Amino acid sequence: MAKSDIDILIRQIAKLPALGTRSARRIVLHLLKNRDTSLNPLIEAMQNLKQNIKTCPICGNFDTSEVCHICSDEKRESKTLCIVQDVTDLWAMERASFYKGKYHVLGGVLSAIEGVLPEDLNIDSLEKRLQNGEISEVILALPPTVDGQITAQYILSKIKPLGIKISTLALGLPVGAELDYMDDGTIEMALEARKEI
Amino acid sequence: MAKSDIDILIRQIAKLPALGTRSARRIVLHLLKNRDTSLNPLIEAMQNLKQNIKTCPICGNFDTSEVCHICSDEKRESKTLCIVQDVTDLWAMERASFYKGKYHVLGGVLSAIEGVLPEDLNIDSLEKRLQNGEISEVILALPPTVDGQITAQYILSKIKPLGIKISTLALGLPVGAELDYMDDGTIEMALEARKEI
Repeated sequence: MAKSDIDILIRQIAKLPALGTRSARRIVLHLLKNRDTSLNPLIEAMQNLKQNIKTCPICGNFDTSEVCHICSDEKRESKTLCIVQDVTDLWAMERASFYKGKYHVLGGVLSAIEGVLPEDLNIDSLEKRLQNGEISEVILALPPTVDGQITAQYILSKIKPLGIKISTLALGLPVGAELDYMDDGTIEMALEARKEI
Repeated sequence: MAKSDIDILIRQIAKLPALGTRSARRIVLHLLKNRDTSLNPLIEAMQNLKQNIKTCPICGNFDTSEVCHICSDEKRESKTLCIVQDVTDLWAMERASFYKGKYHVLGGVLSAIEGVLPEDLNIDSLEKRLQNGEISEVILALPPTVDGQITAQYILSKIKPLGIKISTLALGLPVGAELDYMDDGTIEMALEARKEI
């Protein structure tokens, strides 16, 4: 019917994270008004994504090469493995450019509410990866949320028997924080983990 | 380079209205994780939009047909013309499904800050449309903002000499509003335009 192509696209865009029908309408209007500068480059970029991006069979990262550039980088320390919830968290770690080891992307965290079970996450492949003995330290960089911590506990119970050193990211005040704006849990954690200077 | 296809798409998405880099990253991750249910339908919907949607040469609406379904609908009253800022406003009017006349889409409002001049808007085509004498009432449905009202004044000065009846949308309290949450300007307008009952 009349404007169905527009409606279909609005519905598709409204389903994306962080967006709803109202913002989807604004985006579609923007695309219609800026075909050359916005719609066409966007279609092209999505097609490139579709054609070129593969999931790394080792760590679960997304990249243009079959094995991702981090797994295949021989300059990176291959004894340390950082476990992250998702590729966005891997990107965040890489932006901080402090960590020089390898990654393992779980693809989510366990969640009773959303029905995410251990078999939905890349935990089997993690266990296999740890069994060959090449990795000597595992850093659990999972979010400090209930689901994140339950997932960390679950992974801990699975890999503890392997005798590998396991650590988690420190909890405390974020850099630049105002105490006044911090929640009680963060203040408690920062106090508990206080460091003598 | 490594993840440049991903970066290009993130940059493209971050340029869309209501989005920034952080939400663009989340969207791209969602697309990568849901290729069949999200990425592919989205590419298809955008290509359909690109190929099928035209700008109506009469009113400026977007539609699949050359002349839009509103302009070509003979059941709609062709003596009344509603002037709207953009196609999203036309859609909003149509969702309210109260108005049965035709539309004229300006494609924006005059703006000193954003450098939008009369020649950037569909004002010439509006004047031509009104000159043939078929339209007997013009409704200025422009937003009650400074730019919207300046645009309304400008259009008024252009079309007043034609002797056509001109009205604007009523200002007042929105339906369901709490007085306590209304801004002073709205309360003033609602008082000024009070109706005897």
